[in-house]
Amino acid sequence: MNKHITLLAGASSLFLIPSLAFAAPAKSNDEVIAGLRDNALQADNIAYDIVEGLTTEIGPRQGGTAAEARARIWAVAKLKALGFENVRVEEYQMPTWVRGTETAEITAPFTQKMVVAALGNSASTGDAGIDAEIVYFPIIDDLRTAPDGSLKGKIAFVSHNMKATQDGSSYGAFGPARFVGPNIAAKKGAAAIVIRSTGTDYHRNPHTGNTNFEPGVAPIPAGALSIPDAENLERMIARGKPVRMKLKLTPQNVGMQTSGNVLAEVKGSNPDLPIIVIACHLDSWDLGTGAIDDAAGCGIIGAAAKHLKSMGQPKRTVRLLWAGAEEVGIWGGRDYGEKHTSEPHAFAMESDFGAGKVWAIDFNLSDSASALRTQIISALAPLGVVPRKDAAGGGADVGAIIAAQKLGIIDLQQDGTKYFDLHHTPDDTLDKIEKAELRQNVAAWVATLAYIANYEGELKPEPAQ
Amino acid sequence: MNKHITLLAGASSLFLIPSLAFAAPAKSNDEVIAGLRDNALQADNIAYDIVEGLTTEIGPRQGGTAAEARARIWAVAKLKALGFENVRVEEYQMPTWVRGTETAEITAPFTQKMVVAALGNSASTGDAGIDAEIVYFPIIDDLRTAPDGSLKGKIAFVSHNMKATQDGSSYGAFGPARFVGPNIAAKKGAAAIVIRSTGTDYHRNPHTGNTNFEPGVAPIPAGALSIPDAENLERMIARGKPVRMKLKLTPQNVGMQTSGNVLAEVKGSNPDLPIIVIACHLDSWDLGTGAIDDAAGCGIIGAAAKHLKSMGQPKRTVRLLWAGAEEVGIWGGRDYGEKHTSEPHAFAMESDFGAGKVWAIDFNLSDSASALRTQIISALAPLGVVPRKDAAGGGADVGAIIAAQKLGIIDLQQDGTKYFDLHHTPDDTLDKIEKAELRQNVAAWVATLAYIANYEGELKPEPAQ
Repeated sequence: MNKHITLLAGASSLFLIPSLAFAAPAKSNDEVIAGLRDNALQADNIAYDIVEGLTTEIGPRQGGTAAEARARIWAVAKLKALGFENVRVEEYQMPTWVRGTETAEITAPFTQKMVVAALGNSASTGDAGIDAEIVYFPIIDDLRTAPDGSLKGKIAFVSHNMKATQDGSSYGAFGPARFVGPNIAAKKGAAAIVIRSTGTDYHRNPHTGNTNFEPGVAPIPAGALSIPDAENLERMIARGKPVRMKLKLTPQNVGMQTSGNVLAEVKGSNPDLPIIVIACHLDSWDLGTGAIDDAAGCGIIGAAAKHLKSMGQPKRTVRLLWAGAEEVGIWGGRDYGEKHTSEPHAFAMESDFGAGKVWAIDFNLSDSASALRTQIISALAPLGVVPRKDAAGGGADVGAIIAAQKLGIIDLQQDGTKYFDLHHTPDDTLDKIEKAELRQNVAAWVATLAYIANYEGELKPEPAQ
Repeated sequence: MNKHITLLAGASSLFLIPSLAFAAPAKSNDEVIAGLRDNALQADNIAYDIVEGLTTEIGPRQGGTAAEARARIWAVAKLKALGFENVRVEEYQMPTWVRGTETAEITAPFTQKMVVAALGNSASTGDAGIDAEIVYFPIIDDLRTAPDGSLKGKIAFVSHNMKATQDGSSYGAFGPARFVGPNIAAKKGAAAIVIRSTGTDYHRNPHTGNTNFEPGVAPIPAGALSIPDAENLERMIARGKPVRMKLKLTPQNVGMQTSGNVLAEVKGSNPDLPIIVIACHLDSWDLGTGAIDDAAGCGIIGAAAKHLKSMGQPKRTVRLLWAGAEEVGIWGGRDYGEKHTSEPHAFAMESDFGAGKVWAIDFNLSDSASALRTQIISALAPLGVVPRKDAAGGGADVGAIIAAQKLGIIDLQQDGTKYFDLHHTPDDTLDKIEKAELRQNVAAWVATLAYIANYEGELKPEPAQ
């Protein structure tokens, strides 16, 4: 529990006798919330414990797999132990793809192995692999403009060089090499595609992630090279001779499997007020242990909701959604949206961008809530959080319920400068978590939640422009 | 060639007419050497080109393998192209060990894959692997004191936590977990051993390296876990239940194979003066591309010797030894010592500690050379190089010839703070080379060589204490 708050409460009760010369007033709501915030910033261990537990006792937990099922059992036990109410699993079925063997080797004009990982939904090369000439596209747009059929029997190589940005916007700009590059290459007849990993590090750890093929387009083998390997391949290509690669990727589609969301609640005192949903995702990619993506998010929202309870019962119910199968297609978020579409929600938040400090806050709240907005901005200012004019968007797992019910949203934007060094790589492990930064997230979240969960006015989004 | 020097030479020749009012003196030897140094610091590209070429066109080149043979062909062509004399290969035979499949998975009380690499000379687990209980030793001394037979049927796990040091001394202190840990565990009856990688990074890239078993001790399977995996395993152990690992390592001994040294020379003008040998090693471990270990060393000594030639013919012959098979047992250095034991040498230097800046200089030179020593210290001072009182030791590949002939030695000590982040890992790739730091090495080397190669006095080591 909250040692700092306990001390303050003890101290202030001493001073509440009005006849004392130095009597202090009862603590205001703002002061109580500031206390919750500062306590989390100084001393929260709940978030770290959740990340430590998931990464140590479960590790990788890809959507639809047995490891994700173990993670649900773990999550239910942890959320119950933290004292949340209505802890439960909501299952659903989903098609599941799993990684096989993966090797890549340059066979001409030099001989050298490279480090590769299949992208989610990649086809298999078969055990024999594919030995084919590389066709080089420095950026994704070069692939888009390649003539149809020009890639027949070749391996396309797209080296789309992403750089780090604080707000993560480079993912949207450079991610299409992964998101749609394989589909484009397949339509142009390529035998396979390899991309420079969508990432910003220099380690021999490829960045996996889903890719998608349009209906009617037969999937091709699709892999991500580690960034040092992609740059090595570029240097080989620059020498001017044809470069050949032997590529072996043997993933499989294993059919419909069970996945599920884990839900838990802090029950509100007024059942007439629509609820607040806060989300992270429980699944992770299979290469790392899913520390920053997204055990951190589950740690942050779990810790913030736990600290919120120490203030007493909030007016609105706060529901935690530890979503399943986000990485492989947002199956959990969609299932939540469908199953809860007729249950009144007011507001949504999500934490799914690592464990870097919250540096900005974005809102999607109508003007009727402007006083609330000002309170939250003031409460987050000591944490160095900048209010911006960007409209909050929520996140993948709250996307379906937001779309269904037009919810108010706040985004606590995390610093993503280092996020894409680790995203979807084997390197996403516990040691990458900075405790002080994780605590700052919990502090920002508990203060925000404390205002929102006790606000009885409307939490509508801004009217559509 | 040396643009800066050419300009200076042109300018000074203008001023050499004695009757001019502002006549400048002819450049002193010190000034010429300072020019070589400064030019290398500003503009050397030779060292980087060597590293780029070896890592791109050859890549991993383990001693005794076909890749190392390709590296020798590459090296001969490069050293001839740089204009060195007597470029040649000296072959020898050596026993060769090669990596196979390697996987590790925790099977109880949790289920999670770990990243492992076999250590050189590891035995094979066979294709079936070994599934056994882990016995944990926080440091190597704990393993040393375990009772004989206490490890029967178990996998020893030694987690000896190395930290970075500028002078690399932590390798000597923490390396024994790798160097002798497997031998100790084998003698105590262990089925296998895994160690925390001997390294200082936090990436999922294990540090391989040789281990050695005493004659009469049957080798056991021996692997290094990446550091995030070793810490994860420690956290599992801390939960107090027995931890089991399924370990599969299938390396093979492939018998006697051909390896070789590549030699090249800058011929001296006085054949009566004993020669100088400068060494790096051409082979590398198989996981990375051998950029810092030790293409950098070959780049540094190659570039320094090339720049030395621009000063005109030195008095002493400078021989470059690009040694073979250092990593797997210093086979090249020993072969050089044996084959050249009767050829008079005066002095040795070696570059084999990455591409970090030279921060210190150590000598092993008798007092008769104290003036030379002062000149070199002065020439290196502008590069920020600290003269120390430690006696120079040379290095692995010049060890045999030093021992045979009692040579003078200078060590240009490189900053090793980041070296063990990369050492023997897949991450030892070109992108880790900082060009400015590599150039500073070349500058320090060319200045040192220029004094030594033109010194006609004795270059004896200090008398034994």
